[in-house]
Amino acid sequence: MRYFLLIALSTHSFGHNFLSPLATLRSAHSTLSHAFTRRRPYPTIQMEETLRKALAEKQSAVDSQGNAVRALKAAKAAKADVDAAIEALNGLKLEKASIEKQLQAAVSGGGGADGSLNREAFRQTVNNTLERRLFYIPSFKIYRGVAGLYDYGPPGCAVKSNVLGFWRQHFVLEENMLEVDCPCVTPEVVLKASGHVDKFTDLMVKDEKTGTCYRADHLLKDFCNEKLQKDLSITAEKAAELKHVLAVLDDLSSEELGAKIKEYGITAPDTKNPLSDPYPFNLMFQTSIGPSGLSPGYMRPETAQGIFVNFKDLYYYNGNKLPFAAAQIGQAFRNEISPRQGLLRVREFTLAEIEHFVDPENKSHPKFSEVAKLEFLMFPREEQMSGHSAKKIPLGEAVSRGIVNNETLGYFIGRVYLFLTRLGIDEDRLRFRQHLANEMAHYAADCWDAEIESSYGWIECVGIADRSAYDLRAHTDKSGVALVAQEKFSEPREVEKLVINPVKKELGLAFKGNQRMVVEALEAMNEKEALEMKATLESKGETEFLVCTLGKNVTITKSMVTISKEIKKEHQRVFTPSVIEPSFGIGRIIYCLYEHSFYTRPSKAGDEQLNVFRFPPLVAPIKCTVFPLVQNQQYEEVAKVISQSLTTAGISHKIDITGTSIGKRYARTDELGVPFAITVDSTSSVTIRERDSKDQIRVDVEQAATVIKEVTDGRTTWADVWSTFPHQSSASADDD
Amino acid sequence: MRYFLLIALSTHSFGHNFLSPLATLRSAHSTLSHAFTRRRPYPTIQMEETLRKALAEKQSAVDSQGNAVRALKAAKAAKADVDAAIEALNGLKLEKASIEKQLQAAVSGGGGADGSLNREAFRQTVNNTLERRLFYIPSFKIYRGVAGLYDYGPPGCAVKSNVLGFWRQHFVLEENMLEVDCPCVTPEVVLKASGHVDKFTDLMVKDEKTGTCYRADHLLKDFCNEKLQKDLSITAEKAAELKHVLAVLDDLSSEELGAKIKEYGITAPDTKNPLSDPYPFNLMFQTSIGPSGLSPGYMRPETAQGIFVNFKDLYYYNGNKLPFAAAQIGQAFRNEISPRQGLLRVREFTLAEIEHFVDPENKSHPKFSEVAKLEFLMFPREEQMSGHSAKKIPLGEAVSRGIVNNETLGYFIGRVYLFLTRLGIDEDRLRFRQHLANEMAHYAADCWDAEIESSYGWIECVGIADRSAYDLRAHTDKSGVALVAQEKFSEPREVEKLVINPVKKELGLAFKGNQRMVVEALEAMNEKEALEMKATLESKGETEFLVCTLGKNVTITKSMVTISKEIKKEHQRVFTPSVIEPSFGIGRIIYCLYEHSFYTRPSKAGDEQLNVFRFPPLVAPIKCTVFPLVQNQQYEEVAKVISQSLTTAGISHKIDITGTSIGKRYARTDELGVPFAITVDSTSSVTIRERDSKDQIRVDVEQAATVIKEVTDGRTTWADVWSTFPHQSSASADDD
Repeated sequence: MRYFLLIALSTHSFGHNFLSPLATLRSAHSTLSHAFTRRRPYPTIQMEETLRKALAEKQSAVDSQGNAVRALKAAKAAKADVDAAIEALNGLKLEKASIEKQLQAAVSGGGGADGSLNREAFRQTVNNTLERRLFYIPSFKIYRGVAGLYDYGPPGCAVKSNVLGFWRQHFVLEENMLEVDCPCVTPEVVLKASGHVDKFTDLMVKDEKTGTCYRADHLLKDFCNEKLQKDLSITAEKAAELKHVLAVLDDLSSEELGAKIKEYGITAPDTKNPLSDPYPFNLMFQTSIGPSGLSPGYMRPETAQGIFVNFKDLYYYNGNKLPFAAAQIGQAFRNEISPRQGLLRVREFTLAEIEHFVDPENKSHPKFSEVAKLEFLMFPREEQMSGHSAKKIPLGEAVSRGIVNNETLGYFIGRVYLFLTRLGIDEDRLRFRQHLANEMAHYAADCWDAEIESSYGWIECVGIADRSAYDLRAHTDKSGVALVAQEKFSEPREVEKLVINPVKKELGLAFKGNQRMVVEALEAMNEKEALEMKATLESKGETEFLVCTLGKNVTITKSMVTISKEIKKEHQRVFTPSVIEPSFGIGRIIYCLYEHSFYTRPSKAGDEQLNVFRFPPLVAPIKCTVFPLVQNQQYEEVAKVISQSLTTAGISHKIDITGTSIGKRYARTDELGVPFAITVDSTSSVTIRERDSKDQIRVDVEQAATVIKEVTDGRTTWADVWSTFPHQSSASADDD
Repeated sequence: MRYFLLIALSTHSFGHNFLSPLATLRSAHSTLSHAFTRRRPYPTIQMEETLRKALAEKQSAVDSQGNAVRALKAAKAAKADVDAAIEALNGLKLEKASIEKQLQAAVSGGGGADGSLNREAFRQTVNNTLERRLFYIPSFKIYRGVAGLYDYGPPGCAVKSNVLGFWRQHFVLEENMLEVDCPCVTPEVVLKASGHVDKFTDLMVKDEKTGTCYRADHLLKDFCNEKLQKDLSITAEKAAELKHVLAVLDDLSSEELGAKIKEYGITAPDTKNPLSDPYPFNLMFQTSIGPSGLSPGYMRPETAQGIFVNFKDLYYYNGNKLPFAAAQIGQAFRNEISPRQGLLRVREFTLAEIEHFVDPENKSHPKFSEVAKLEFLMFPREEQMSGHSAKKIPLGEAVSRGIVNNETLGYFIGRVYLFLTRLGIDEDRLRFRQHLANEMAHYAADCWDAEIESSYGWIECVGIADRSAYDLRAHTDKSGVALVAQEKFSEPREVEKLVINPVKKELGLAFKGNQRMVVEALEAMNEKEALEMKATLESKGETEFLVCTLGKNVTITKSMVTISKEIKKEHQRVFTPSVIEPSFGIGRIIYCLYEHSFYTRPSKAGDEQLNVFRFPPLVAPIKCTVFPLVQNQQYEEVAKVISQSLTTAGISHKIDITGTSIGKRYARTDELGVPFAITVDSTSSVTIRERDSKDQIRVDVEQAATVIKEVTDGRTTWADVWSTFPHQSSASADDD
């Protein structure tokens, strides 16, 4: 079950977090990007749902008014009454047509009369800008590329490095996590224990003529969505059926999927050829370790397993104390069948995962109070089942009402919310969605995804799961090394314990060479089995007993085993810790950040739309540019001096001494999301321009680097800077 | 040829660097670690060589004195004279025995009378400490591990992150490099073009009975070294032969290696079974991209190729200007045959590579003057060939005398020296060794390795190569995309150009359907071929001409082609840039840093040796610890306040409120290389202790975090702090 989730996620993880003084510090400069109103570039999914409902309501109003008209006619009512009823009906029809038109625009992705771009066009504009400015590059482009592999070009690489740096600060450093770094190459035994070798699969169908492979569920999903969105002629029953298929898609067996594909007559999208039956394809890249060819290995599909297998050492490193969290940032690999959705579904990606180990009997969190008052969009299981939308719930309430299973899980949800919004994710397009029962693994206590709305719809970017003791138990079983924790009691405790004593002499006589297997099987009985045997032996004197290792039943008599309950003194409790795992798909977060940060504004002349990324300074690939206003040796010298001070302060910046007009230079750097520009227009003082407001202040040459440093480090805000320094008219510059 | 080098390196790369104000800033705090005398834990290789020479000299003195004695006896000289001569001989023999003893100790790795640990024992102590404190962990340990795969545990991971952070600051930020991030999964075509698919191999032999694989050259190398070091009975000729084998090891063909193994009777080290003939094994981890099984791929063996294939986009991003450098940090993979040398030869590792693209006609560097005065150990080709040792040469002189091929290469050598020594690499155990002619690829202009001496000997940690236009040409040829740069001339230049004009009408008549192939073959002639044809056609009227695509000769007559030289005006020069590539094996640098930073000192009681890592603050995994002197709520509150200030300042630290004695707590953190400890012994002021000197100062509670921040950021030094604040007697604490 979990593996479907993983695939849907392209990410998944566990940690121990604390809100700190830095929280205050960071929130100061995130206001920079929030100071400017964000207009959504296209209608939200929620708008679409509202329109659908309105349309259905209007339709039933039209229907009932139609009935009313017919009833009036049948009853030969007065013409005036009939006419009035018909007029009302026509009015309703007009209203319905208007809603229909809005909905049509919404499902095709906006493009409304308000001039907002539709979803696809918006995505195209963002992606064109991203690719032209080398935020990303399709990998191995000169060899026509490989689907699902992308490079981060210079600005993209800087954004990634900033996001990871902030992740380390926000999670690892502030919460004192133990960061580790494990290899990608992983021997088979580890991924056998975790279940990936057997279950990390997608169902695949092949074009029977060309051999091209497709994901079976994607084809079915596309078919249903297409029907629902484009075919307005389908009956209500059919629509309900298709919606049901979409809802249970992840639960369909290979046979059920195959049957649906046949039933709907789905063919290969590119050729319309018939398709094979679905069969499972393992999504791990396989390889061989060493020269013998006898040691199969895989490129890890997640970083989490590297942490689990090290639990014993990490627990020791933490002074044999719980709770503690380990964290890992690294590459993970999924050999997708046919990658789509550009940067969102890729074959190699960076995960940042946290495994927070906790006593299953105490999942409280000492710093929960620091996030309890946060309020953001949550989408609990019940709201989803009852067809409601996500709604704002204070986190403290969500935990106290039992919507979120425990404080530690709740604490991480809060910390993830802070992390994402500080990066610049729009909080109105961020929701925490609880997994439905059918999405969750049987062992999981609770699971929430941070989903971000993009032009592709709601995208799972962070998974936050309470995975109970599953992973540590799996590796304990496979490796024979006990991955457990101890709680030492301050005073010994008396506990009732079941004691099974096989009588070896009797067993030896009865079973000879098989004695050991019988003894082990008796000792391995759980409490229920043992008490049943005790009762049977007492009542009947003997019982049949299945010895798995012998593959048969044997007869156990009363003299062969004593079973009793004894009071024992225990000095400690030994248990397998639970693990709470926040797992971040870094590439997905960055892509959503690009979409949320992108906007266009007209050039001063009004003849073109200019692109801007409103990255907060924390994320911006380059913090600052330095421009001499005109080509002039004196100004260039000043620019170089400022550039040196910026380097010393560790601020990434760009110096541009080309003769291009200052307006063009601003536009060029706005498109890279550079928050500040220093323009040298004298040898004593310079201007600093803020990207989104285009406001400019004037500062002394010596102060320039310091001001930039303070505002990019978040020690002050642009608003403070604006109120401190003299303002400069911006008329001349952007006009240029 | 290059591939042998790569293997020897486990690393290789190219960039554009500038010394900046930060240089001054950093050198301030690197003095911290250099303020303390470093005693080498074992004799250096250089000492060993000196002893060998001394021994040979003494031996010949003994020989000639022996001859003198014999001559005196033969001449029946006076007894007093003979006795005096014998006494002198015995004196020489004693001296020789003493040198022999020292040499014996040196080759077995030290262990001299001065109590210095020998090499193996030293390595064992360092590695035990590293593993016990989780600097590294053998990967998948609970499953008995995989040779050549290691995890970085929490302190190791922090050291790595600090080293990479400094690398980004020192190279990418200060030199304005274009950083990119490409996938590890690489399609075959890319590595076919680079030559890795065909040539990235090691020669392997198999134990003929067990099938265990070994590297053929390693077995031969071990045999020669063992003989040379342990068998003092071998003749001078045999020793010379073995040394010659070691010198040419990398040049031996598969057949030659096999013959030597047979000749020396080398068997499988573990079983003494006979060995197979050597055969090549490709060191790349192979996999398959996508579900079809038709797209072979590999895990990249280096990060460089990802940069080369993006040259066109990066050149455009840089405004179509040279020089510029691209950089990449990432995982690389080599499926070693049988990894040895612990952390130095691993199957997955982090590379940091720079590709600096430059006009082959101008390899000067604008910032070379900033490194020209640096002076450090260099080991030019000629010194190696003539049996001399590495010597200190000012970098400017090395370039001006032509020892180093060009300024850009020299600039990078200087920047690498600064990088390594600021990390804490001992400059006396760092040398830059030039590749010998037989080590270098035919296309390479020059190549230097930064080698660091460790207990394993001299280890290549950074390769700095001028690879000329090789890589870009290889990808141009394979992809058909021209990876070239243009130089626009300010004025058009007249150049003489060869013009080949096939006369299509005549060729059509003569060759009909084969016309196109003949035309293409004629146009593809190089200048020499064309001029020869012109001459033959003029003298004989016709010539035989091989058309490869037809696989046969055809007869070309005078009427079929005109060949002439014409003067053309050119507006630009189009050329393939040269690439200078510094490539850093991050794991190797870190391992050497561990060895260079490690020392032991007696506990106060003198009953045990305590381990210390003298990491500079820049590298230290944790910058500071906070200890309440005794368990006491007031002190703990103060400790928490200081801890919060440190978190706000972004300083990684540890708070330890256990009741362990303060001396033990200091010892525990010295072993992690934590440079500073704040001990809370009052509510108004605290002490700060420096790790290596054990000196303590007293500061106000409010000042503590600021002092730590300034000294760890390198804005001040411990010496300055020491002279500013009141001193605290350290007697009580470390004694505890």
